[in-house]
Amino acid sequence: MVPVGDQLPRGVCPSCEKIHYENPKVVTGCLVESESKVLLCRRAIEPRIGFWTFPAGYLEMNESTQAGAIRETKEEAGADVQIEQLYALFDLPYMSQIYMFYKASLQSFSFTASSETTEARFFSEGEIPWDQLAFKVVTETLNWFFEDRKTSDFAMHTMVINHPTLKKLSAPSST
Amino acid sequence: MVPVGDQLPRGVCPSCEKIHYENPKVVTGCLVESESKVLLCRRAIEPRIGFWTFPAGYLEMNESTQAGAIRETKEEAGADVQIEQLYALFDLPYMSQIYMFYKASLQSFSFTASSETTEARFFSEGEIPWDQLAFKVVTETLNWFFEDRKTSDFAMHTMVINHPTLKKLSAPSST
Repeated sequence: MVPVGDQLPRGVCPSCEKIHYENPKVVTGCLVESESKVLLCRRAIEPRIGFWTFPAGYLEMNESTQAGAIRETKEEAGADVQIEQLYALFDLPYMSQIYMFYKASLQSFSFTASSETTEARFFSEGEIPWDQLAFKVVTETLNWFFEDRKTSDFAMHTMVINHPTLKKLSAPSST
Repeated sequence: MVPVGDQLPRGVCPSCEKIHYENPKVVTGCLVESESKVLLCRRAIEPRIGFWTFPAGYLEMNESTQAGAIRETKEEAGADVQIEQLYALFDLPYMSQIYMFYKASLQSFSFTASSETTEARFFSEGEIPWDQLAFKVVTETLNWFFEDRKTSDFAMHTMVINHPTLKKLSAPSST
């Protein structure tokens, strides 16, 4: 039903009449650079198990997007990072998600796998497994990053992705 | 309870065991400029009834933040706008909210009040009712805007606001 004064139908509890709004979710994470290499994590869970991605995850309540990006990088890659700037923001309306990636630097050269990551590794530009990246948002961000690094001008990038773009692929085998 | 593989307690339905995640919300809106003036709306609803703000509101499911900003500007100020760029992004972790304001231009010089707005009006810099602005995010964004306008360099701004900053004021009287 459409509540009074509203424009869209909402879920309304038939017992207590509380309106249950559904809202888009924010995913926050880090593009971590160290010694000209970037940190990628190999996904231990679906979707895109076996593919590589940035450490990232859902923003929690009462958490800033910076704090969430730092927390996810610790949880998924065991790495302590310092945020430098917001670097990429993606709108994915077809999934009702917003992705925010912060450019970050490593506090100490220590990182590890986790329950959500089978492998965490730093890649030089030439080593990036382009055909084994988990999501278009990762591919686009890495493309921007290596392009911007030529001039050291890291202005923020934005993009709207209106539909799924990656082919369904089987998980890459371990190398 | 904390679901298996999770880090935080979540609401879990005792009947169907479905996990009800709570997530931060995204508010999206526009800073509309026309003939060197900016559009503000006088709030017809709480919080901050009677104070001035940008047209803005909660992002809907399956909506990009740009589309949401355009929709809210139409709903609250009756104005058709064209997005120019993402201009300001605020983290308000104490409210579990993210605010995004797009810089936008008016498509046609037509605007009006609405059910959520008693008055919509364009203000020159000298006319801005600084002590009658509804939220700190509006004050900060206007400060950035008038400063950036001196050089026509509108790079995106970000800010984390960790606690409420505005004094509780009674609503200003109509002028």
